Amino acid sequence: MKLIFVTGNPGKFLEAKELLGKYGIRLEQADIEVTEPQSDDLEEVAVKCAEEALKKAGERFIIEDSGLFVNSLNGFPGVYSSYVHRKIGCEGILRLLAGSADRSAYFMAALAYGEPGSGVRLFTGRVDGNVATEPRGKSGFGYDPLFIPFGSHSTFAEMSIEEKNKFSHRAKALKAFASWFLKKYERK
Amino acid sequence: MKLIFVTGNPGKFLEAKELLGKYGIRLEQADIEVTEPQSDDLEEVAVKCAEEALKKAGERFIIEDSGLFVNSLNGFPGVYSSYVHRKIGCEGILRLLAGSADRSAYFMAALAYGEPGSGVRLFTGRVDGNVATEPRGKSGFGYDPLFIPFGSHSTFAEMSIEEKNKFSHRAKALKAFASWFLKKYERK
Repeated sequence: MKLIFVTGNPGKFLEAKELLGKYGIRLEQADIEVTEPQSDDLEEVAVKCAEEALKKAGERFIIEDSGLFVNSLNGFPGVYSSYVHRKIGCEGILRLLAGSADRSAYFMAALAYGEPGSGVRLFTGRVDGNVATEPRGKSGFGYDPLFIPFGSHSTFAEMSIEEKNKFSHRAKALKAFASWFLKKYERK
Repeated sequence: MKLIFVTGNPGKFLEAKELLGKYGIRLEQADIEVTEPQSDDLEEVAVKCAEEALKKAGERFIIEDSGLFVNSLNGFPGVYSSYVHRKIGCEGILRLLAGSADRSAYFMAALAYGEPGSGVRLFTGRVDGNVATEPRGKSGFGYDPLFIPFGSHSTFAEMSIEEKNKFSHRAKALKAFASWFLKKYERK
């Protein structure tokens, strides 16, 4: 069955397409314009974006917001990860962490599913790990060259999409969604 | 005459009250809840916030958004200055600038005036200067301990409100607004 992913980020789309394909869900990308609210709460951002997209989308869709939360930086860059990355890049995070003994961090994803006439439902995923001491790898996007998930020695940017999906926050949220979605669909 | 300043920031309120008082405008603080949109454009944020506040406010008001834009950091922290300050503080900006020859930066303020039945009007102000090598002073708020405007050797946090108002982005926007507002009011 078909599903729309509302995103302007080709990296996110490829990861979701690979994972949901395994569940028999055929993902298509749509670039519906949505104004994200300023909020420190990732889940709130995803839900509000989904509610806005719901007004414009004619069919069921998913939309996702995610961020890197570095523990010794009070969760920075967090909800504004994408903006911060555009401005100061991976290099900026490394400079902020220079000399820091605690390099622990986590990625969070908040994935909202929207269905016209039926509302919005939220799924989340989280992966814990460490920030590398230098950028490594060329795959993925954003802070992927910096993030080493627990259970691996590679950064996300050193992994194939399939390998990243074994660890990632986004994959966890997508799996939770896919299980729920397939059950719901099978009932009908 | 009376005017409402929609802000939850007591520092901003005191600066505006001092300055507008000289124009015979009596400022009162109101904490109307407004969801700021995520946008890289300060003026867009101010205008959209004013449009939202306009739906809730029963009388004319001003609302203001401002940010510190560091040139060698591509304008970071910019529109998200307040969030970034909560997370990594002045210390974070200093770490990002460690060893940087170019410490130039500017503060921008976008001030929107809203009047029920008449819409929104935007005023802006900008002050250029440098980022100090360490935090200095206790006055003000946010990045004030770091910012030395051209024409002074003191940071904003080493100045009285009256002195800061001789230089600041906020004061410039407020002055532009006050001149316009008084003319408009006198005509009626």
